[in-house]
Amino acid sequence: MTAYSDLMAFQRETEALSQIAGRLGWDQETMMPEGATPQRAEEHGAMANILHARRIDPRIGEWLETAEAVDDVAAANLRHIKRDYERTAKVPARLAAELAKTTSLAHRVWARARAEEDVASFLPMLQKVVDLRREEASAVAGDTDPYDALLDDYEPGATGESLSAMFSALRPRLVNLRAAILEQPAPTALSGVFDEAAQLALSQKLALGFGYGLENGRIDKAVHPFSSGSGLDVRITTRTNPVDPFNCFYSTVHEVGHAAYEQGIDHAHLLTPLGRGVSMGVHESQSRIYENQLGRSRAFTGWLYGQMCDAFGDFGIADEEAFFATVNRVSDGFIRTEADEVQYNLHVLLRFDLERALIAGDLAVNDLEAAWNDRFAADFGYAVDKPSNGVLQDVHWSEGLFGYFPTYTLGNVYAGCLHVALRAAVPTLDDDLARGDTSKATGWLRENVQQFGGLRTPVDTITHATGRAPHEGPLLDYLEQKFSAIYRL
Amino acid sequence: MTAYSDLMAFQRETEALSQIAGRLGWDQETMMPEGATPQRAEEHGAMANILHARRIDPRIGEWLETAEAVDDVAAANLRHIKRDYERTAKVPARLAAELAKTTSLAHRVWARARAEEDVASFLPMLQKVVDLRREEASAVAGDTDPYDALLDDYEPGATGESLSAMFSALRPRLVNLRAAILEQPAPTALSGVFDEAAQLALSQKLALGFGYGLENGRIDKAVHPFSSGSGLDVRITTRTNPVDPFNCFYSTVHEVGHAAYEQGIDHAHLLTPLGRGVSMGVHESQSRIYENQLGRSRAFTGWLYGQMCDAFGDFGIADEEAFFATVNRVSDGFIRTEADEVQYNLHVLLRFDLERALIAGDLAVNDLEAAWNDRFAADFGYAVDKPSNGVLQDVHWSEGLFGYFPTYTLGNVYAGCLHVALRAAVPTLDDDLARGDTSKATGWLRENVQQFGGLRTPVDTITHATGRAPHEGPLLDYLEQKFSAIYRL
Repeated sequence: MTAYSDLMAFQRETEALSQIAGRLGWDQETMMPEGATPQRAEEHGAMANILHARRIDPRIGEWLETAEAVDDVAAANLRHIKRDYERTAKVPARLAAELAKTTSLAHRVWARARAEEDVASFLPMLQKVVDLRREEASAVAGDTDPYDALLDDYEPGATGESLSAMFSALRPRLVNLRAAILEQPAPTALSGVFDEAAQLALSQKLALGFGYGLENGRIDKAVHPFSSGSGLDVRITTRTNPVDPFNCFYSTVHEVGHAAYEQGIDHAHLLTPLGRGVSMGVHESQSRIYENQLGRSRAFTGWLYGQMCDAFGDFGIADEEAFFATVNRVSDGFIRTEADEVQYNLHVLLRFDLERALIAGDLAVNDLEAAWNDRFAADFGYAVDKPSNGVLQDVHWSEGLFGYFPTYTLGNVYAGCLHVALRAAVPTLDDDLARGDTSKATGWLRENVQQFGGLRTPVDTITHATGRAPHEGPLLDYLEQKFSAIYRL
Repeated sequence: MTAYSDLMAFQRETEALSQIAGRLGWDQETMMPEGATPQRAEEHGAMANILHARRIDPRIGEWLETAEAVDDVAAANLRHIKRDYERTAKVPARLAAELAKTTSLAHRVWARARAEEDVASFLPMLQKVVDLRREEASAVAGDTDPYDALLDDYEPGATGESLSAMFSALRPRLVNLRAAILEQPAPTALSGVFDEAAQLALSQKLALGFGYGLENGRIDKAVHPFSSGSGLDVRITTRTNPVDPFNCFYSTVHEVGHAAYEQGIDHAHLLTPLGRGVSMGVHESQSRIYENQLGRSRAFTGWLYGQMCDAFGDFGIADEEAFFATVNRVSDGFIRTEADEVQYNLHVLLRFDLERALIAGDLAVNDLEAAWNDRFAADFGYAVDKPSNGVLQDVHWSEGLFGYFPTYTLGNVYAGCLHVALRAAVPTLDDDLARGDTSKATGWLRENVQQFGGLRTPVDTITHATGRAPHEGPLLDYLEQKFSAIYRL
């Protein structure tokens, strides 16, 4: 055996264990009996210890010293392994343990604070989390910007500065677009009650239509929709709300985008570092292009309107055109996860600027709520009414996830770029979508993005697929064109 | 930290990982998408390697040298850990790996041989499995009987000689009872088609009635019913057959017996060596007393008859008395897993004698089929018609499970002993069962058997609960009395 094959055999076993750990999380959200919670916490802890010990195993360092890359695939594998190993090695065991303990505690404190609308009770814990993550970031970053070290966990290669430049170009045009839209009369909102079994049946039809394969996956109900697993076992969840079938349909299509990426990676990369989606941003580009550029397009919603008429009878929307406007209705709201395409990125940009300032030390934890509320009022034009609609709404910071939020908008930017390339490559796209046929679109994405997994860097993945470096222009153009048409701006 | 607490912390983590591995098996039988099979094999392999490495970790030996037992619980924990560690240490790594590889291969060869009714194609693989298990048994047994070393894996402390003495007392009375029964007219067999949803609803009612707790468990469908997990997460499966609702009901009650044992162990023993059922025999005693002595009793079947009338309407059985006879109908059949209470142990005794002779070297693999067929004809009075009804019917030997079969009958013997003690302790038992109320019975079993988990040896567990050493008399008396009444012998 060579050092490379020894290393890869070790990594393959680690990845298999990591898949098991992920499925344990899936089980917890879908199948686990409630009384099992304390035992499950110990099981998760045992698995985390095993995985951590393998990630810092000094044999990895030894193998890396002599392993040779005979081809592009081997080079990419070594790049991933080296990056993870060096990063993990820079974080002292004491700090890693303290972070795990503190974020677990902070999560509970956050949940109570949110329920009680009590920001002050959360701030001491948030301070600890910020301090620990800053310490970790400094240990990893060396002389570079600590925020970049955190960002790198979710979007390898991205920097706060480059994202800031991109997001600064997004913000004014999105603020203007939003304001212009909200001056217009609103389209009809969906009303009525929609049979839950019929919602699930149509959401499964959508999942299969968008290329999700049940021979390597399954769909279950969960409180929050998610996609879980890589390779040959990629599971998604969905949920129903009797008065909001769009929630069921579009969260399903969103998770199918994530799952199709994992299912679509070349099986040659199974259980290797290349066998997973390459970054959160590229992952989100897949879920978002499935959900928005395809799923919320005029052509596809035309088909969906017919499906919903078949499933639910007359539900008060007159025709395809009105239905398209209803699906894409823009309205005021505090909550990021409920936001439409136009406003979603404004929610993210707010969080990005605040968390970057927190990590840089330019914003004190005690001033966070005021900063949030000021920024929200500036971009959205009205005041946050309570912390659960403002600074306490998201779980991320309590779990120490700084650097995660911007990948949502980066995904939208990538989706915008891919959408242009896709339309150029598939000129019949709207005709296909109008028949509910997404196969050419998803086939193009599989062929040009998904199959490669972690072979290229995130930016190179998008560049390879689109022929140019990712930029925010296409997303802005798409949003302005689409919503100008709907709202007659 | 003392050596004992270090050792226990290590064992606790191992046990948590072992629970995860078990749940991976549950997932495979109930939830896993079919296309995931190759990836799942790697996941199982990775988990098995982790668990094996922990079981032979030399730190266990060091801790054991200085660990001190401050009480009975600590003494029992150390006894279990020492036994497992010493046993595992005696098996060379080369042999363990070869056994894992060979049994995995033999399983596939057996499945094909059974499907094709081709004994000869299986014998070379079976020979290898027997040779490897004999080698393992010799390594573990030292100067004692190698078969006992295999048996000890499933029933610590049992010996082939003691079981043989017990089984020799069972066999003639069971052969005679069977022959006498089959000379009598047979009770009405169940006929008709039984709604599957109604079967599942009644089987869930039975499970809950027998004390299975859904806050720490769940019921799913699977091809073969099983119970899985310990402590706070103990899951069971069931199955339905439209023409055989008893299969659904009694396999559910059987698995509930196993699961109630695991759920009933004192939570103080959670994730320790005492937190699992102590042996296969004691486990089977719980499943069997739930299924047979309680579930197939005159009193309980009277209640069940009413339930089935409510669920299915008139299904052709005139009254409770006739229903009791139908439930306990004895008829010819080749298959162990389908056998009634009277004949079941004859199937087991046959396998015990043959496998003991194989391991002792007194029976050649090439002569196994003839020996099986001779013995079957002697005890059952008719000839095996094809290998899938004979020597190829069970999966066990292909998987290397020698020493496992006798624990089925040992469980029945234990159940017979417990039943006598239970009736003495709960004089109102039949009145309770006639109302479908098993709570006093299952409460007594929890109090006197289940809660202790691995605290005592298997024999001491039964002795403690019944006041005397286990023996075959009560089982034989129970069977003779019950079936003499039904068949008017």
